[in-house]
Amino acid sequence: MSAAIDPLALARALIHCPSITPRDEGAQAVLAEALEAIGFKVWRHVWGEAPDGPVHNLFARIGSSGPHFAFAGHTDVVPVGNRDGWSVEPFAAEVRNGQLVGRGAADMKGAIAAFVAAAAENIPAQGSLSFIITGDEEGPATFGTKPLLDWMEATSNVPDHCLVGEPTSRQRLGDMVKIGRRGSVNVWIRVQGAQGHVAYPHMADNPVRHLVNILHALQARELDTGNAWFDPSNLEITDMTVGNPATNVIPAQAEARLNIRFNDEHTGAELVQWIEKVAARETAGASVEAKISGEAFLTEPGDFSALLADAIRAETGAETEFSTSGGTSDARFIRRLCPVVEFGLPGQSMHKTDEHVAVDDLHTLTRIYGRILRTYFA
Amino acid sequence: MSAAIDPLALARALIHCPSITPRDEGAQAVLAEALEAIGFKVWRHVWGEAPDGPVHNLFARIGSSGPHFAFAGHTDVVPVGNRDGWSVEPFAAEVRNGQLVGRGAADMKGAIAAFVAAAAENIPAQGSLSFIITGDEEGPATFGTKPLLDWMEATSNVPDHCLVGEPTSRQRLGDMVKIGRRGSVNVWIRVQGAQGHVAYPHMADNPVRHLVNILHALQARELDTGNAWFDPSNLEITDMTVGNPATNVIPAQAEARLNIRFNDEHTGAELVQWIEKVAARETAGASVEAKISGEAFLTEPGDFSALLADAIRAETGAETEFSTSGGTSDARFIRRLCPVVEFGLPGQSMHKTDEHVAVDDLHTLTRIYGRILRTYFA
Ligand SMILES: [Zn+2]
Ligand SMILES: [Zn+2]
Repeated sequence: MSAAIDPLALARALIHCPSITPRDEGAQAVLAEALEAIGFKVWRHVWGEAPDGPVHNLFARIGSSGPHFAFAGHTDVVPVGNRDGWSVEPFAAEVRNGQLVGRGAADMKGAIAAFVAAAAENIPAQGSLSFIITGDEEGPATFGTKPLLDWMEATSNVPDHCLVGEPTSRQRLGDMVKIGRRGSVNVWIRVQGAQGHVAYPHMADNPVRHLVNILHALQARELDTGNAWFDPSNLEITDMTVGNPATNVIPAQAEARLNIRFNDEHTGAELVQWIEKVAARETAGASVEAKISGEAFLTEPGDFSALLADAIRAETGAETEFSTSGGTSDARFIRRLCPVVEFGLPGQSMHKTDEHVAVDDLHTLTRIYGRILRTYFA
Repeated sequence: MSAAIDPLALARALIHCPSITPRDEGAQAVLAEALEAIGFKVWRHVWGEAPDGPVHNLFARIGSSGPHFAFAGHTDVVPVGNRDGWSVEPFAAEVRNGQLVGRGAADMKGAIAAFVAAAAENIPAQGSLSFIITGDEEGPATFGTKPLLDWMEATSNVPDHCLVGEPTSRQRLGDMVKIGRRGSVNVWIRVQGAQGHVAYPHMADNPVRHLVNILHALQARELDTGNAWFDPSNLEITDMTVGNPATNVIPAQAEARLNIRFNDEHTGAELVQWIEKVAARETAGASVEAKISGEAFLTEPGDFSALLADAIRAETGAETEFSTSGGTSDARFIRRLCPVVEFGLPGQSMHKTDEHVAVDDLHTLTRIYGRILRTYFA
C-alpha cells in the first residue's frame, strides 16, 4: 500500500521548476522522487546538445509482467510569452478562486501529477505500469520521445497500451478524448527565374508567375472529404517571399512555404511527391524541400477507448467525444509501439497568459485516471 | 547668321556638371548661355522641395509665329553606380578611341548638344523653335516637364510638334525612332485575413489563399494580342510579402505588387478597375492601391515621322524602325499638347558604367537634326 499523493501539491512542485523547452530546472527530479516513493524504478536519460538539447527524459516502471499500461507526457513548457499579460508570477503556481494558475498547469504538469496520484492508489497487483516522460515535446521533439522509445524497445519495456495526458478536454473535463491525429508536413517551394526589366518581359523569366501557378494548382485540389474519424486533409500556404524593392524589375527568385494537415487517406511522402510533380510541370526552376513532422494515425474506437469513456462517464456523467482534431503530439511516435489515446485536462488556456486549471478538475482527473487503472488491471 | 557650335565641346561642358537628379550643378546655366548666344530667349524655373526637388527647368524660344517646333530633353543624369566599374572619371567627359565617355553622354546631354548645334545653323526665318528642358526626368518627374508644360500653356508657348531627344537608337544611330510608348501602372494588393493555427483552418481566414487566387486570375488573362504599333500589354507580379516565420500559423496579412505595361487598347484607370473587381470578387479583405505612371500614347506614323525617317536615311542610309517598345519617357506628358516622337543616340550604354557615345555619332546626329529643321521650316 502506497502513501497518498496530493495531485495539487505535486502539480505545484512541478510548476515551480521553470522548465521551458529544452530546460529541465529540476522538474524530472521532483517527478522521480515522487515515483520512487511509491515503488517505481526510475531511469533518467539526458540526450542531445545545444541549441535543441540537452533534453531530460525519464522512464519509470513498476511490475515486470503483462499487461503493461503506460502513461506518457512532457515536463517541458512553452515560454511565458507576454509577462505583462499574467496576473500572477508564471512559475509561482498560485491558487486563486479555485484555479491553479501557472505555466504548465494545463499543458501538462497537472495531468502528470494527477496520474502519479492515481498510480499511488492503484499500483497493479499483476501487470506493469510505466511513465514515459520527455522534456522537448514543445520543441523540435528530437531528443525526447523518439530516442526514449528506442531505448524502451532495446530494454524490453514496450507497453501494450499507452495513454497520453495532453489537455484534450475542451469546455469541461472529459468532453473529448483524442483517438488519433492528423499528420503534418511543411513544404518549402523555391522558384529560380531570370531577372529583367518589366518593360522587356521576353528577356526575363518571372519566378513569381510560376510560383503563383504552382500554389494555385496546389490549393485548388480537394485532398479528400474526410472520413468517419477524420476531418478533411487541408493545405495552407503560410509564407511567401520575394524581397524585390524595385517596381520596374522582374525578380530572380520567389519562394513560399506551406503546411498540410492530412488524415489517414494520405502519407507525407505521397503528398510531397504530388507537390514535386505539380512544381516540375510548371517550371524546371522549381525546387521542393519538405519536412514531415508526423504521419496520420488512428487508434480505432474499441475496448481501449471504451474503457476511457466509461471511466469519464462514471466520474463526471459526461459523454466523451472521440476526436482526431488539432495539432500533433508525441502520440505520433508512440503509435509505432502500441495503441495510444490521449486524454487530459481542459486545454483552453494552454500556451496563453494565466494558463490555469480548476483544482476540482485536478482531483476529478485523478479519480478518472484511477478508475481507468482499476478497470485495465482487473 | 549664328556662330557655329561644336556639339562635342557643348556635350563635354554639360557632362562636366554632375547633375544627378534632382541636382543641376550648373548644367542649365551652360545650356542657357549657349542658347542666348544664338538668339534664344530663355526662361528658367526652379520648382519643388527636397527630397525630390528643387528641380531646375528651362524653356527657350526663338521666333514668335507658327509653325512651332520644340525639342525636349533632360539635363539630369542617373547616379554613377559602381564607381570601380568606370575606366575614367564619370564627369571628366574624356574622349577615348573616338568615344566620348561620361555619365549623360548618351542619356542625354549628347543629344541636347547636337540639337543646339543644329539649331545654331538652322534658325528658322519664319516660325518658332523652342527647347523644353527638365531636371528630374530620371527621378519622380514631379517638378519638371509637367509643370513646365502648364507654364507653356499659360504663356502661349504650346508647340505644334515635339521631338524628344532620348537615346532611341539601338545598334547604330538612326535604326529606331519611338512613335509612342506603352503606359505603366504599379498596383499594390493587400489582403487582410484572420490569423490562426494551421490545425484549425475553420477558425482562420488565410489571406495568402485569397491573394494567390487573385494573382492567378490576373495573370491568367490575356490583356490583348498587341496591334499594328504595339506589343501585347503585359502584367508582371514584381513582389510578394507575408513575413510569417511560424510554420504552424496562418498569417493575418499578405500583399503583392504588380506592374502592367499597357498599349493604347487600355487605360490605366480601366486596368485598375479590373484589378479591384477581381480582388473584391475573391474577398472583402482585399485592398488595391495603384499608381499610374503614364498612359499609353501613339503618334500615328505620318508626315511628322516620315520627316524623321527621310532625314535619317539622307544622312546615314539607314532605314529607321518605328517602335513603341521600352520604358516610359517625358513624351507621355508632352503628347497632351502636340504630336511627339523620340529620336536620339544609341542607348546601349545608358545608365551603365562607362556610358559613352561615338564622337562621329554626335556630328551625324547634329546633321540629322539640322536636316529635320530645314525640312520642317521649308
Ligand atoms: Zn503538451
Ligand atoms: Zn533619358
